[in-house]
Formats: sequence, structure tokens, C-alpha cells
Amino acid sequence: MDWAVLLAGGSGTRFWPLSSPTRPKQLLPLAGPRSTAEETVARLEGLIPPDRVLIVAGGQLAGPLQRRLSIPFANYLVEPRPASTAPALVWATFEARRRDPDATILSLHADWVVPDPAPFVQAARAALQAARAHDRLVTVGVVPTRVETGYGYIVPGSPLGDACRRVARFTEKPDVPTATRLLAEGALWNTGLFAWTAERFLAEARVHTQEVAPALPRLDRGDVAGFFREVRDISIDVGLLERSAAVAVITADFAWDDVGGWDALARVRPADAAGNVLAGTVTPVDAAGCIAWSDGIPIVLAGVRDLVVVEANGRILVLDRARAADLKQILARLPPEVRDLPA
Amino acid sequence: MDWAVLLAGGSGTRFWPLSSPTRPKQLLPLAGPRSTAEETVARLEGLIPPDRVLIVAGGQLAGPLQRRLSIPFANYLVEPRPASTAPALVWATFEARRRDPDATILSLHADWVVPDPAPFVQAARAALQAARAHDRLVTVGVVPTRVETGYGYIVPGSPLGDACRRVARFTEKPDVPTATRLLAEGALWNTGLFAWTAERFLAEARVHTQEVAPALPRLDRGDVAGFFREVRDISIDVGLLERSAAVAVITADFAWDDVGGWDALARVRPADAAGNVLAGTVTPVDAAGCIAWSDGIPIVLAGVRDLVVVEANGRILVLDRARAADLKQILARLPPEVRDLPA
Repeated sequence: MDWAVLLAGGSGTRFWPLSSPTRPKQLLPLAGPRSTAEETVARLEGLIPPDRVLIVAGGQLAGPLQRRLSIPFANYLVEPRPASTAPALVWATFEARRRDPDATILSLHADWVVPDPAPFVQAARAALQAARAHDRLVTVGVVPTRVETGYGYIVPGSPLGDACRRVARFTEKPDVPTATRLLAEGALWNTGLFAWTAERFLAEARVHTQEVAPALPRLDRGDVAGFFREVRDISIDVGLLERSAAVAVITADFAWDDVGGWDALARVRPADAAGNVLAGTVTPVDAAGCIAWSDGIPIVLAGVRDLVVVEANGRILVLDRARAADLKQILARLPPEVRDLPA
Repeated sequence: MDWAVLLAGGSGTRFWPLSSPTRPKQLLPLAGPRSTAEETVARLEGLIPPDRVLIVAGGQLAGPLQRRLSIPFANYLVEPRPASTAPALVWATFEARRRDPDATILSLHADWVVPDPAPFVQAARAALQAARAHDRLVTVGVVPTRVETGYGYIVPGSPLGDACRRVARFTEKPDVPTATRLLAEGALWNTGLFAWTAERFLAEARVHTQEVAPALPRLDRGDVAGFFREVRDISIDVGLLERSAAVAVITADFAWDDVGGWDALARVRPADAAGNVLAGTVTPVDAAGCIAWSDGIPIVLAGVRDLVVVEANGRILVLDRARAADLKQILARLPPEVRDLPA
């Protein structure tokens, strides 16, 4: 049967000061009234029932997620520590197979914005079918709509049939010239939406993912804590997909955004006539091109252009929009008592 | 004897959202740890004793001022309504003469920043002496240090002796070309620091200030409320100084700023190496030329230039510094529920 594994980990500071360890990006109503995690679960309706949706999250997030999502409590896989995506997916795939030896898994993240669910569901269904039909780890690529240096790219290879192709190579976060060349070659954005049978995935991981595979006997014994103590942190892309020959890619056609930071808000929320994207009580007076988020305190933007202005969690950020991608480095330069948000 | 009349009226929105009707500019610690009103009273020490300092203020301000200043309560003249400076000074001068028939009055405002008190006191003493020696309404002019369109100017005329000159004319808030010409002619900034004998002042007001003088019998009867009902609002400059021939000007040499708005803060507070003037918990990261005031919530300024950023009274203002002088017009465009500060 089809299962979904929802990766909801990651503390994330890309929406500082709105995102916090207990309320990261996936719990924020970034694109509309519901959080991206709620939207993600809603998007699976009709494709995979809630009792076959597994959620991998850290301990801080399990409670907030359980309060928001209608997923059985037994389906929450609480990571003893964050260890990137390969250990999480090995554990979740192992667990799905324990419950259903014929499990086919759809792997997705809880922090994407997908405005139109129908083509997404169509692509997910196609990926699950391709994973079974070709017995491969299937990645879903979407056609890029801009030169984006923050995403990973998939260069498709020779056809396998059913619109499914081999993968020539993966390229993570290219610079602008490389990204431009990738677009010209027909490379696709790596959405992070994957499908595989549990059997094939675990077989490939045993061969290729030495950072994780030696710890698998721990899971056999039900020793999740030991598994996480033993594994080394590594992403599924680097630790498995880039190493395995049994990968494939299908091309999908849905609007998708991983909302990587404040600047991305302008892609997923409507703008006013002056190009301002405003959330909460924000009053623009001759302001243009600004992104502003008030979490309670009214903000007035007067005569300013191309700023990110955020009030949340007892902090105020005023940031040049052109520097929005550097937020992580900017935060590293703040004194801890300013950077660390009140609990 | 010498008396001081401290004008502390004016609700003022020029420091919105920090200034409020109950805590206007003169109660704010704009230039240092003490409010400008406290600094003003401290500056008079050794020149005029507290029991001869009269304070004219609106009802909302009397309490806050009394809590901060060591001035006898009987010296607070609480205006029944704001009516500009001529009625206030006529009343205060009348009251000083009632207490002391030989009163000479030094008139000053509670919202100036004067970094060095010594030359100020020297000028005030000279003005009081000149007022008695020449029996004139004596204005104090300082040599301009920049082309400033927000101030009034005094063009000195022929000498009267003792460095005291007649006034050729007053010019209020000139445009840039006019201000430039005034500087070339040797015009002085009209500080608003004045001195006069009560006798001469009331005689001149009776002749020239028809908006106020007919109401004087009310003060004779102790009917302050009736006086304020009867007078018409008019400033001392327009209502008396510009009309009287018995005016004079002395040139003083002290640093003086009326701190007319957020941009003026950069003249009265020290800047960091990047030209940022910051008050409260404000962290600049590659920010330059900004003026920021946090009244409690930490502010981060990242990669931005030439902004005014203020957090106070449950509001956040982000303003182009070049537009700082337009704050009044900007406020007029805000919805009342944003503009009006919580009580």
C-alpha cells in the first residue's frame, strides 16, 4: 500500500524572528490562514489516508504538530536528535515496512507551498506508480521558472518509459552561471518529493549509505535511541540518491516553492499595487517593494523601498530585501540575547 | 528680580510614536538620560531660583512635569486650553508682575537641547540685562550652522550699544534659497529665548496684540478661564515681536537645537562609526546612517541605510530619513486606530 512520510524536522531560522524552535516555518501560516504543515496533510487527502501518514519530527515539534494535524499519535516518529534526512527516511521507511511489508513510500516535506493541489497529487501518484513499475528511487522534478541558486537541480538522463527517465546527475545550489546553464540543458528543480518501495530503498541504503546502514540492526531490535546515537548525519541526497544507480526522475507540472526565506514570501502571497507583500496590521505610505509581517504590533512603512520588516516574538527585524538570503549569516553576528528568542 | 517663564505646552507628534499627548517631546530623554524639561530647569540653576520659575503647561502635562521637576506647585500655570504662545506669555508675565512688580522675565521653551549650559546662561544673563538697560523686548539670536528651513531667522539692524542691536526683520521658516541668502546677510536663528521687563512687555502687548490685550481685565479679576475663552490663538512672534518697534536682538554663541523631529536626533546624540544614531537595544549589521529608537523591543537593522526606525507605545515606524520632516503629513494619512496611541 501507499504510505506518506512527512519530514517536519528542522528548527530553521530563515524566518527569524517569526520562526522559533517551537514554531518553525512549517507551523507558520506563511501563504494563507493555515500553516504549511496543515496544508501538506490536507493536500494528501484522497491520495493517502491519515493512518498511513508517518510524521518525522523533533521532540519540540511533536506536540504542536499533534494539536494541529489529524494524524494518529502512533504515526509520529519523534527523532531523539536531528540527524538530517537520510537517518530520518531510513527509520520511517523501516517503520512503514514493519507495518506493511509491501509499503511504497511517498516522501515529502511539511514546509512547502503548493498553491494548486491537483497537479501535485497527480505527480505524487505517478511517482508512486513509477517506483513500483521500475523498482527505482523516483525523484520528482519540476520545470524551473527562474534562475534560482537556492535549490537543487536534477539533470535527466535516458528514458525508462512512462515519462520516467534515469538521472544523469544532481547539482545542489549552483551559482548563477551554473544555474543558467542548467536551465538551458533542461535540468529540473529537485522538489524533494520522492517515491520508493520500502524494499528497494532499504536495499539501496544498505549498499550506499554507510553513515546509516550499519545501525539498521538497532531498528530491528526496536532501539531507536541507539540507532540515532550510531548514525552519522547525512542528507538523503548526498547519502543515497547521488550514489545509487537505481534512481529515476519524472517531470511534474505544479507550482512549488520551498519558501526558503522572507524574500520568498513575495512569491506565495499577493502583493498590493506598489508591490508590497504585507501580513498583519501594516500600513504603507508611499512604500514600495516591501515585505512586512506584523505579529501584533502595528507597523507603518513610510517612503521606504525594498525592505523586509518583521515584528514577532519580541523582536523587530529591518532588513534590506536584497540581503534577505544572508539572514543566517546576519543572525550569526547578533549578540545571543538578541538572536535567541524568548521561550 | 529675574524670573523665568518655561513654556512646556504643545502635544507634538514630531516624535511619533514615541511622543504622545501625555508624554510629549519635552518629557522625552532625547539627548541623554534626562528629559529636555529636566535639562532646561537644571540649566537655570545659579541664574534664577526655582521659586521664580513659572511653568506654563496644559492640564495633561502638569502632573508628569510636577513629578519630574523641583519647582513649587504654585508656579505651574495650567492653561485651560492651548492658545499658542502669546496668550501664555501674556498670562505668565502678568502673573510674574503680580508677584513682583519689578519682574524681568526670561522666556524659554522646555524642549530645547543645549549641550553646554555655560554660554547659554551667559546669554540669558546678557538678555535680562539688555531688557532692563534698553527697556526693549530682547530676542537672542545664535549664528546659524547650516541652511535650516525649519527655524525662524532674525536680521539684526542698527546698534543700540552693549552688543545689542535693533531688529531689521524676522523671517519664519524660509525656503532653501531664502535661508541661504539670510545666512549671507548675517541673519541669526531665532532661538525663542527672550527677555523683557513685565512693564514694557505688557505695555507693548496692549498696543500691538489685539488678539489678547482686550482680555487682560479678566486676569485683573483672576478669571484665567475667561481670559483663555476670550483670547484668539496667536504666537508671540507674529502677535507681538514682529509688530513692536521696541524689540532688540543680542547675538549669542551657544549650541542650540530645537530637535524638531527624528532627523534632528542625529545632531544631539552621538553616532557610531557608520553614522547610526541608536537608542535602546538596537543592533546594526552593515547598517549606515540610520536613526533608531527602541523603547523596549530589540531592533535589528541589517544592510539598511538612512532609515528612521522607532518602536514605542505599541507602534513601529519605519521611515525614509529623507522624509522625516514630512512625518506630520504621513501621520495624517494613517488610519486613526494606527495613528492614535494607546493611552
